[in-house]
Amino acid sequence: MGGDFAPAYPVHAAVEALKNFPAISRLVLVGDEEKIRHELSKHGAVPTERLHIFHTTQVVAMDDSPVEAVRKKKDSSMCRAVDLVKEGAADAIVSAGNTGALLAASTIKLRTLPGVDRAALAVVMPKREGIFVLMDAGASVDAKPENLVDYAIMGEAYCRHILRKPDPKIGVLSNGSEEGKGNKLSCETYDLLKETPVNFIGNVEGHALFDGQADVIVCDGFVGNITLKTIESLSKLTFKVIKEELTANFVRLAGAMLVKSAFRSIAKKFNADDYGGALLLGVNGIVIKAHGSSSVLALYNSLRVAVEAVDNQVNPHIVENLAKVHNL
Amino acid sequence: MGGDFAPAYPVHAAVEALKNFPAISRLVLVGDEEKIRHELSKHGAVPTERLHIFHTTQVVAMDDSPVEAVRKKKDSSMCRAVDLVKEGAADAIVSAGNTGALLAASTIKLRTLPGVDRAALAVVMPKREGIFVLMDAGASVDAKPENLVDYAIMGEAYCRHILRKPDPKIGVLSNGSEEGKGNKLSCETYDLLKETPVNFIGNVEGHALFDGQADVIVCDGFVGNITLKTIESLSKLTFKVIKEELTANFVRLAGAMLVKSAFRSIAKKFNADDYGGALLLGVNGIVIKAHGSSSVLALYNSLRVAVEAVDNQVNPHIVENLAKVHNL
Repeated sequence: MGGDFAPAYPVHAAVEALKNFPAISRLVLVGDEEKIRHELSKHGAVPTERLHIFHTTQVVAMDDSPVEAVRKKKDSSMCRAVDLVKEGAADAIVSAGNTGALLAASTIKLRTLPGVDRAALAVVMPKREGIFVLMDAGASVDAKPENLVDYAIMGEAYCRHILRKPDPKIGVLSNGSEEGKGNKLSCETYDLLKETPVNFIGNVEGHALFDGQADVIVCDGFVGNITLKTIESLSKLTFKVIKEELTANFVRLAGAMLVKSAFRSIAKKFNADDYGGALLLGVNGIVIKAHGSSSVLALYNSLRVAVEAVDNQVNPHIVENLAKVHNL
Repeated sequence: MGGDFAPAYPVHAAVEALKNFPAISRLVLVGDEEKIRHELSKHGAVPTERLHIFHTTQVVAMDDSPVEAVRKKKDSSMCRAVDLVKEGAADAIVSAGNTGALLAASTIKLRTLPGVDRAALAVVMPKREGIFVLMDAGASVDAKPENLVDYAIMGEAYCRHILRKPDPKIGVLSNGSEEGKGNKLSCETYDLLKETPVNFIGNVEGHALFDGQADVIVCDGFVGNITLKTIESLSKLTFKVIKEELTANFVRLAGAMLVKSAFRSIAKKFNADDYGGALLLGVNGIVIKAHGSSSVLALYNSLRVAVEAVDNQVNPHIVENLAKVHNL
């Protein structure tokens, strides 16, 4: 029931996901049953054994205080969905709702994994060749160097076991590439990461995000969130301006028709919707946060990410790797 | 002599600037005289009363340690150029060299303005409507809330007196728009800025950089540098990919010819080269830092920024406004 277009888009995405992902044995739509049935009917769908509705009476609003939401809205779609994961009735949750509330509900109800002090949002982004993982994209601020080391271990496992990238390279987001460049947090993280078994390649500047070698780039959630949103808004603005300019007169319109396929293939690479939601790593369960303004495609792909995360259980690897590093 | 294309590009830009900016009474090229004369000859130019060469024997390398550069390379083009400003023989310096060294040389030789604890790099960027100033774009890291308040005062004066924007709106870069969202630094800065006479509009998220209302956005140099470089690299990648896609086959090439003017007008708005260098605010002099990889156009526009900064002396306003705020 969270996000800007609920329950319409989540229901539509769920119907499509059930058609295309046979790995889903059961999909539970948690929320207002009447509204969900109404949305299902638009797609000629009804509840079945494989498509279940779990009725709830409350909704966490986008501006609710996270901890209050968890405490006072016990029958919200978000809290109940997290409960399902906690009870083992579901393997994963996908939510486009209030990020802070989802983080609070997940951390409070599911708890963090052994050895994890803070959970972190891992976002997958396209670069010149392939993709990279940016984390923390905004789960928490004022992290300590030890937290960023945990993010590196978690991101490494995500990359290796879910994204299927062997020997992922880890970098620290910084304002300079040389060792010693950075702020107190990034420099101390650098020193700690050198001692871990991860393939640490050093500092990564803003310039090297899209052209660089790093597969996982760690930073504090404050910086990560600003970086992520800056990227999203610049992309949006760029393509908006291009569209306006390409349709400004008849000659350009004619040209635009001829280059349409070019933009389709660019959109395919750069469309955030294709990458699905962000994985909340570090909690004892699989939690996927989709953007509040997620399209049906974005929600569909978030469900794909959920399937992949369930198929390739990454949490046991995280616990094992963290134990090794913490015992160094 | 600093930057990636010295002395060729700086000399070329200087020749063009002298043609077009009658306000420049004298332009001093500081560096290796023989090399500079050689570059000048390519443009049919020779030293005159208005175009002077100041011969120096050393060059600060891009990877020199800042403080070492200032201490040991006293006859470098950068140090001598700052000396000229210090002695009053020049009104402003433009450099594409080592950022850290320029900052160190400027701070050590020119000193900070009364009331200023830290200098900050102010970068002008395009947004949907008009422009905004991001600062600190990387002069220093681990700033205190009081530093960010000074940045706001300095950016406000820059906006008002040089960019000619009346009543500039000030925002704090953060990971959420509501009051209370942010890290320790941004929240404390928020509280302090509420008490100042600047037109403070609150937190600005990454989403609102290009669409938002803020004319000046303050942040720590670590975050500012990452944000700036992320924007630069994403722009570069986007237009590179567009170019590749538009030239991938004959149909698209034909279309690309028809939409060429569209991209020319987009480039005009988004080309960083048109905005010139970053102004180092807070030092007792006018210091402009051009990108290390600056084109001739970018250097030419950095000289334009220098002329505007000299014409509209902003430092007295900064000193006056800071005194008011610090005495609150």
